[in-house]
Amino acid sequence: MATEKFKEASPYTKPRPRPPREDYIYKHFLYFFEFSLTRAKKNTKTIYHSNATITFALFGVGRAGTIHLTNILHNSRCKLLYVVDDIEANWSNIKKRFRLENVSFLKSKQSEAVFIDHNVQAVIVASPTYTHQEIVTKALAAKKAVFCEKPVAENREDTEKCYEVARLCGKPLFTAFNRRFDPSYSALRERARNGEIGHVHTMNIISRDSPMPTIDYLRISGGIFHDCMVHDIDMMTWILGEYPTAVAVQATANVPEIKAIDDVDTVVATLKFPSGTLGMINLSRNACYGYDMRLEAFGPKGTVRVANEQPNHVETMYGYDGPTTAPIYYSFASRFKSAYIREMNHFLDVVLGKCEMMVQSKETLAVSKIAAACEKSSRTGQMVELCWAAGELPEENLM
Amino acid sequence: MATEKFKEASPYTKPRPRPPREDYIYKHFLYFFEFSLTRAKKNTKTIYHSNATITFALFGVGRAGTIHLTNILHNSRCKLLYVVDDIEANWSNIKKRFRLENVSFLKSKQSEAVFIDHNVQAVIVASPTYTHQEIVTKALAAKKAVFCEKPVAENREDTEKCYEVARLCGKPLFTAFNRRFDPSYSALRERARNGEIGHVHTMNIISRDSPMPTIDYLRISGGIFHDCMVHDIDMMTWILGEYPTAVAVQATANVPEIKAIDDVDTVVATLKFPSGTLGMINLSRNACYGYDMRLEAFGPKGTVRVANEQPNHVETMYGYDGPTTAPIYYSFASRFKSAYIREMNHFLDVVLGKCEMMVQSKETLAVSKIAAACEKSSRTGQMVELCWAAGELPEENLM
Amino acid sequence: MATEKFKEASPYTKPRPRPPREDYIYKHFLYFFEFSLTRAKKNTKTIYHSNATITFALFGVGRAGTIHLTNILHNSRCKLLYVVDDIEANWSNIKKRFRLENVSFLKSKQSEAVFIDHNVQAVIVASPTYTHQEIVTKALAAKKAVFCEKPVAENREDTEKCYEVARLCGKPLFTAFNRRFDPSYSALRERARNGEIGHVHTMNIISRDSPMPTIDYLRISGGIFHDCMVHDIDMMTWILGEYPTAVAVQATANVPEIKAIDDVDTVVATLKFPSGTLGMINLSRNACYGYDMRLEAFGPKGTVRVANEQPNHVETMYGYDGPTTAPIYYSFASRFKSAYIREMNHFLDVVLGKCEMMVQSKETLAVSKIAAACEKSSRTGQMVELCWAAGELPEENLM
Amino acid sequence: MATEKFKEASPYTKPRPRPPREDYIYKHFLYFFEFSLTRAKKNTKTIYHSNATITFALFGVGRAGTIHLTNILHNSRCKLLYVVDDIEANWSNIKKRFRLENVSFLKSKQSEAVFIDHNVQAVIVASPTYTHQEIVTKALAAKKAVFCEKPVAENREDTEKCYEVARLCGKPLFTAFNRRFDPSYSALRERARNGEIGHVHTMNIISRDSPMPTIDYLRISGGIFHDCMVHDIDMMTWILGEYPTAVAVQATANVPEIKAIDDVDTVVATLKFPSGTLGMINLSRNACYGYDMRLEAFGPKGTVRVANEQPNHVETMYGYDGPTTAPIYYSFASRFKSAYIREMNHFLDVVLGKCEMMVQSKETLAVSKIAAACEKSSRTGQMVELCWAAGELPEENLM
Repeated sequence: MATEKFKEASPYTKPRPRPPREDYIYKHFLYFFEFSLTRAKKNTKTIYHSNATITFALFGVGRAGTIHLTNILHNSRCKLLYVVDDIEANWSNIKKRFRLENVSFLKSKQSEAVFIDHNVQAVIVASPTYTHQEIVTKALAAKKAVFCEKPVAENREDTEKCYEVARLCGKPLFTAFNRRFDPSYSALRERARNGEIGHVHTMNIISRDSPMPTIDYLRISGGIFHDCMVHDIDMMTWILGEYPTAVAVQATANVPEIKAIDDVDTVVATLKFPSGTLGMINLSRNACYGYDMRLEAFGPKGTVRVANEQPNHVETMYGYDGPTTAPIYYSFASRFKSAYIREMNHFLDVVLGKCEMMVQSKETLAVSKIAAACEKSSRTGQMVELCWAAGELPEENLM
Repeated sequence: MATEKFKEASPYTKPRPRPPREDYIYKHFLYFFEFSLTRAKKNTKTIYHSNATITFALFGVGRAGTIHLTNILHNSRCKLLYVVDDIEANWSNIKKRFRLENVSFLKSKQSEAVFIDHNVQAVIVASPTYTHQEIVTKALAAKKAVFCEKPVAENREDTEKCYEVARLCGKPLFTAFNRRFDPSYSALRERARNGEIGHVHTMNIISRDSPMPTIDYLRISGGIFHDCMVHDIDMMTWILGEYPTAVAVQATANVPEIKAIDDVDTVVATLKFPSGTLGMINLSRNACYGYDMRLEAFGPKGTVRVANEQPNHVETMYGYDGPTTAPIYYSFASRFKSAYIREMNHFLDVVLGKCEMMVQSKETLAVSKIAAACEKSSRTGQMVELCWAAGELPEENLM
Repeated sequence: MATEKFKEASPYTKPRPRPPREDYIYKHFLYFFEFSLTRAKKNTKTIYHSNATITFALFGVGRAGTIHLTNILHNSRCKLLYVVDDIEANWSNIKKRFRLENVSFLKSKQSEAVFIDHNVQAVIVASPTYTHQEIVTKALAAKKAVFCEKPVAENREDTEKCYEVARLCGKPLFTAFNRRFDPSYSALRERARNGEIGHVHTMNIISRDSPMPTIDYLRISGGIFHDCMVHDIDMMTWILGEYPTAVAVQATANVPEIKAIDDVDTVVATLKFPSGTLGMINLSRNACYGYDMRLEAFGPKGTVRVANEQPNHVETMYGYDGPTTAPIYYSFASRFKSAYIREMNHFLDVVLGKCEMMVQSKETLAVSKIAAACEKSSRTGQMVELCWAAGELPEENLM
Repeated sequence: MATEKFKEASPYTKPRPRPPREDYIYKHFLYFFEFSLTRAKKNTKTIYHSNATITFALFGVGRAGTIHLTNILHNSRCKLLYVVDDIEANWSNIKKRFRLENVSFLKSKQSEAVFIDHNVQAVIVASPTYTHQEIVTKALAAKKAVFCEKPVAENREDTEKCYEVARLCGKPLFTAFNRRFDPSYSALRERARNGEIGHVHTMNIISRDSPMPTIDYLRISGGIFHDCMVHDIDMMTWILGEYPTAVAVQATANVPEIKAIDDVDTVVATLKFPSGTLGMINLSRNACYGYDMRLEAFGPKGTVRVANEQPNHVETMYGYDGPTTAPIYYSFASRFKSAYIREMNHFLDVVLGKCEMMVQSKETLAVSKIAAACEKSSRTGQMVELCWAAGELPEENLM
């Protein structure tokens, strides 16, 4: 009876435990469960800043468009009015599967109907990159909030123009950096920003795509630095709250078709930051075992990292195969499913003017400048220094 | 260059890999993504058997009711027409938070309106247990499909009566065993049924609740055997496809308030099956570290187990604390979120007559009988034998 | 530079960290490293209570004998004088491989030479069970300390006689319960005894042997309850510091050859303890994936468990096989290698009178009585109650 | 009885399973167990190529010296004759703790006695770096085999001279790269060299020391590139079988005392290899949570990595702290304990002429050249190219 002496008072005599901060799914449940009770007053924690509905037009029903379409249909704060997509042959299938009887389908040349319709409050841009700038500027001019898949435009100047239009029109132009809304990445940032590991000494990112994109897609992707590495650069700078002053990049094309289009598929990069922090990024276009996304921040008090996730938690030991678990998620569409849902809810709060926009124009411009420097370094075989003009860096992220 | 000799042909020269069977989230994405393309014909894999809409009335907006309410609102195949709940003081909050302007709210004494409305195809019963039987039988008699939280009725005889009504009316009476729809538990069953570990020699279940239920709830819960252990017995028999012939149970009340209501909070049980399989179940009402649900099946070819899941995948090493990850899910509401969503989709397919119902009446009756034998064993301090009459066991599950 | 503000003073301005308590291998290194320095005075932590040498005779060079032979040869505190083994055909191989030129080899009928040799301080008994009692009593009578593989004798009465001889001769009779010396099991006991999880509510043990013993061995093993389960019962009672008052056991022989010798290969057991603690034990003779030994203690403050260990820490992800690590250890000989080394060092300290013996006679007698009750329960199909006489329980373990 | 149909023939009717290749501890047990039986003939697998004894002199009983001293005393194939160490004040402690009554202790100025003693077959050099060259050359000249802690000499020219002496004298000069003998690292190399992941696309190394060395040590260490990074460069080139043609390195001194001696404590490096493989190395002098050593190789067929190891396998969940395991090993002395033991056994086999030496002179010279290029890159802020002369690279490692 050696442990009987540790018997304690009944748990009913103690305050009821609250769920841990990490269980965002339970908090979401409580948000609905407790609110609907008369004891709702206790529910002080805000999840969504507003419960109002936003009306949408969606441009493009490709890979990203399908994700956003699913999410707005499952979100009771959203109402879809228009789909704009040029592949008319797909319309009936889309209507049927998504049950969009009451949604108007348009081809892009008919999209003026969207802009003049005062019932449309927000536009999602998930069409090919070369169409972004025109849709974005027209939508903003028509006083609609814009959710735009990156990149906002084909080059830096045009991107800046889009942001300027947004500023003049007083409407949000939100660039989709979905990874910021992932529960793991955002928890890691919170820990780093709380000083839990102290001043960050190194940050290591592994970022390997799955499945490998088609060569048709790669041809128009803008290259691995602008298509992939921007996400990793954004993660690094967003977490660190600094922007590098030097980068050194080495890269290879292991796949002949990728070499043939003057792109690379494998990249290693180091970045130096003003406070002395050092960063490393490792990219691959093709991980045959799933979508491999990891990030680690290391400092004098410890280390914190985001590991991969898996769709189920079954573990086997068969013969001497060794303990084996489920493969990691196959693709960003499954790995970042909850990030996409949370991103959309953030956008809704922004449109309603209830919270600050998490992704700032200066941030996306800075990320793009770093990606360009990385590409230059990989092509010249030299380290590249970066200079930042006064006011060029996003102050919101530096604190 | 020792590994250069392993260079292989470009991945573009090989068939494009398909996602692994485990990534059900990606398959869900593909279901929408590929269908919407003209290449939809390739999409032979059916996820939902039908795309039609089902109209609902929901009885009870408590803990389970809130989960089902959220899921039907987020499911484009569902349309909610009525909410029946006696706490009128909550109605306006519920309407506001869930955006239910077009839904009729009724008190239970007004529920006849639901049964006579031919527009209502299905009823969800999530009200207190003592109300189940009446709602179930009235709904079935009115030719509505029924999704009922367990237990269907307060005792075995009444439960049998409900199933008999369902049989006579030709309408599905679905008892909610949500755990069967969890991706991990269903993957484990598939592996066991495929013979991956051979004839199962032992199955070990750990099942610890979090947070501890209120004593008010426990008073009307029917006791730990009928409130909790039925889930574990169902898992064991559903996976094994057999029913025990002997059980031996020892139990304790560590919490005085639970002892005071003649219930127990901690149970260990062993079960013997006809094929020689042995089972173990360990229950607790109160795990202070989260909702701890594990199951392991062991056989001559290996072992397979369902491990706990966590809301994020951040790992820290701070000083000598040792590697630490996020706490496991706090409660069934977060741990089984995807199981509840999948369960509802299964019910929709059943209602539309497109697939067999996964939970059979004989199964729930058998599970209930085993739970009663376990309770008897714990009270008498003796092993209890179980006899099964011809036709008493669910043949569907024995193959 | 958001994390720059967390920069702290140089680590050189702070006290140098000490290694964590868990790193027993580093502490072993420090024991030698620091002692050999003039700064040895700082090294207050004692690992071994004495540095003197003990002289040995070893009876039996089978499986366990080989392990002990290796360990005493590698331990600079031990000196081997005799090996007693009846298979003379093996002697030259053993001498050669272990480099035993200066060791005398004897057959058992010549073993008197060992007992009359005053240079022999200690005897290790690793010969077949039926020989134990005679060797043990003769060695004790000859004033030698005895390290005996379990069981000490073939039945309870003879075991008690051996202990009585030890008491009268004033020499230690150490029964080898190697698992107590494993770093993980002993760390878990320390945590439970410190009250880290509070009063233990349940303890779950999984204990699956690998490789399956030969049928020849099983025929003389004494049966699974006395050959295997004693280890698990010892772990449970040693950690809990209590002894059960009721057991309920169900068992099967899945292997026909094991059924044929009236033994079983698969066991599930529940145990009830006076403080309300409940125990579960699951045994198998044959885990095809390695030696599977797990233990978990659960209480109101949390849960602590011993997981399996693996010989290397390589992780692979190949295609969609899922993350895979090395198989767990194949057998007790590798899994408990460090436990055996630590056990021998404990015995040396005991022989030198420098520390208390960890395994008491009352403990092994109590464990044996529980195993017999378990066997009885499995044969009768009834729960079995256990009564403990005053003074029967080992007081040392109850605190 | 759904799984009864998977019942298979008794395991006794099938061939007895052999232990998995990974369980090197069990193989070690079998080496002794089976050899000692008359069935020894079955034991075809050689672990040690010879069973003969080698006589030793040890120079230096510091950190590394203590490790080697412990290992040769515990290795029945070794016999220690001399210890040479200048801190005479430590001698009596060392003698006592290690039981070295029969070993001669000398000061370095008396070391001629070692070289002229024909009974000494091998010399271990674990004294300060500046003494290496003289001991190495004298020992080789006296026809003794040499085991030398890295570096062999203070600069490249002197190192080459030492190897030349070894060549002329026909005696092995073994440079201690202990990590090659670690079970995990060597298993990873075997997998990569078998082509299990195909042509390696990237290799990522994280290498963080613990505890932080004293500033006194760092002052004479030769700097982080030659003291630490050589181990990582050796791992990378030894596994890949290629040598880089370009390196780019960025580094910081976060600790002021380290900056003051013109060294750095944090390094990030990228390396480009002729086959297109890209490497990344991340170094830190100070991980507060333990000795953090990881390596990952990634290719078109998958990824394989060496994870950290822990001294015990206890897992806790206390409240909402999240699942926590033991801290990783504190230091190389515990993490690489088995690597040091295996390294010594390899050296013994080499001395006896029974196997090829695993570490070649060209390898250590190449590694040193790469470390120098990395240091240059970190100081100049430029990528540095490496040219390799004909015959400069170790052919043994390139296949």
